[in-house]
Amino acid sequence: MGRTSDAREKILSVAQALIEVRGYSSLGVAEICKAAGVPKGSFYYFFESKEALGLAVIDRHWEDQRRDWTAILQSDAEPLQRLRKLFEATEAAQLAGQQTCGTVSGCLFGNLTLELSNQAEPIRKRLQEIFDEQVDLVELVVADARARGEVTVADDRGAARSVVAQLEGQVLFAKLFNDPQRLEALWTNCLALLGAKVPEQTGG
Amino acid sequence: MGRTSDAREKILSVAQALIEVRGYSSLGVAEICKAAGVPKGSFYYFFESKEALGLAVIDRHWEDQRRDWTAILQSDAEPLQRLRKLFEATEAAQLAGQQTCGTVSGCLFGNLTLELSNQAEPIRKRLQEIFDEQVDLVELVVADARARGEVTVADDRGAARSVVAQLEGQVLFAKLFNDPQRLEALWTNCLALLGAKVPEQTGG
Repeated sequence: MGRTSDAREKILSVAQALIEVRGYSSLGVAEICKAAGVPKGSFYYFFESKEALGLAVIDRHWEDQRRDWTAILQSDAEPLQRLRKLFEATEAAQLAGQQTCGTVSGCLFGNLTLELSNQAEPIRKRLQEIFDEQVDLVELVVADARARGEVTVADDRGAARSVVAQLEGQVLFAKLFNDPQRLEALWTNCLALLGAKVPEQTGG
Repeated sequence: MGRTSDAREKILSVAQALIEVRGYSSLGVAEICKAAGVPKGSFYYFFESKEALGLAVIDRHWEDQRRDWTAILQSDAEPLQRLRKLFEATEAAQLAGQQTCGTVSGCLFGNLTLELSNQAEPIRKRLQEIFDEQVDLVELVVADARARGEVTVADDRGAARSVVAQLEGQVLFAKLFNDPQRLEALWTNCLALLGAKVPEQTGG
C-alpha cells in the first residue's frame, strides 16, 4: 500500500514539474512514466487518462495554494496588509522557482488556462472553480477593507476580480521577462485598483 | 511568383488559426501542411523550421495589431478616451473570434507567452519586444493624460505596464469563462490604475 501510494505521488510530482516547464499538450504518458520510474500499467491503475492526471495535478496544486492563500488572507492582520503579504508570497514563490529551474514558471493555473482551456472542458471547468475561489478569498478581504473605510470600491467582487486579473497579468510578464521583481508592482497596482490610499511616491 | 506567395500566406493563416485553437506545442508541420493544402517541400521552402513559422505568425499578427493599436492610441481623441477605445476594440475582437470559433481564443501573444516562453528563446525575445512596444504605445497616452492633469501617476511606464498587465489578465478570464463581456471591466480598472477620475458609480 505504501508503495502504490508512492507511485501515485511520484507520477503527480513529475507531471507537475514537467507541465510547469513544458506545458501539458506536448507531454505523453510514456514520457511521464519514464521520468517517474513507474511502469505504464501503474499509471493506468491510478489515472484513467492523461486528462485525469492533469486534473489531479491541478487539484493537488490548488490544495497547497488554497491552504497558503487562506492562511494569509484570513489572518488577523489588517485587510490591505493581508493582500500585500499575498503578493510578497507570490513573488517569493516565483523567485524560488526561478532559483530551482533557472526560469520563472509562472502560475500553473494561468498557464493551463491559456494553453488548453479551449480544448478540454473538464479542465476549463476546474480552472473556473479555482479562479472563482481565489476571487472569493480576495473579495472577503476587500469587504473587510471597505467596512473599515480603507478602500472606495462599490463592487467588492468586481474589485477582487481585477486584483486577481492584475496578479495573473503581472505573473505573465514575470515569466516572459524571467524577472520575479516584476511582481513588486502588485502592491501599488492593488491599492490603485481598490481606490485605497496610494503610497506617497505614486501620489499625484 | 503569385502562387508561391499564396502558399506562404496560406501556411501562415492556417498556422495562426490552428495555434489559436490548439496552441503551438502539439502542432506538427505535416498537419499544418495538410490543413493548408500545401506539400511539405513548399513549407521548407518558405520556413526553415516550425519555430521560424511560429515567429512569422507572431510578426504577422503584431503587424496587424500594431496598426490597429497605433491608429487608436495616436488618434486625435482625448487621451483617456483613446484607452477606452482600445478596450472596446479588444472586446469586439474577442467577441468576433467567439462568434467565428465558438470560443474566446484570447491574446495570441499572451497564449504563447504562457505556453512556451520558457522553451524557445527566440520566441521569448520576440514576445518581449512586442509587449514592450505595447507598453510604449500606452505610455505615450499616459504621459499625455498626465500633462493634462487627468491622471495622477508618478511613473508613466509602470502605469502603462499595469494597464497592459490588466488587459492580459482580464483577457485570460474572458478566455477561461468564454465570456468577452469580462473585458467591460477594463475601462474602470484602467481609470483606477491611472488614478484618474473614476465614473460616479464606482466612486467612494
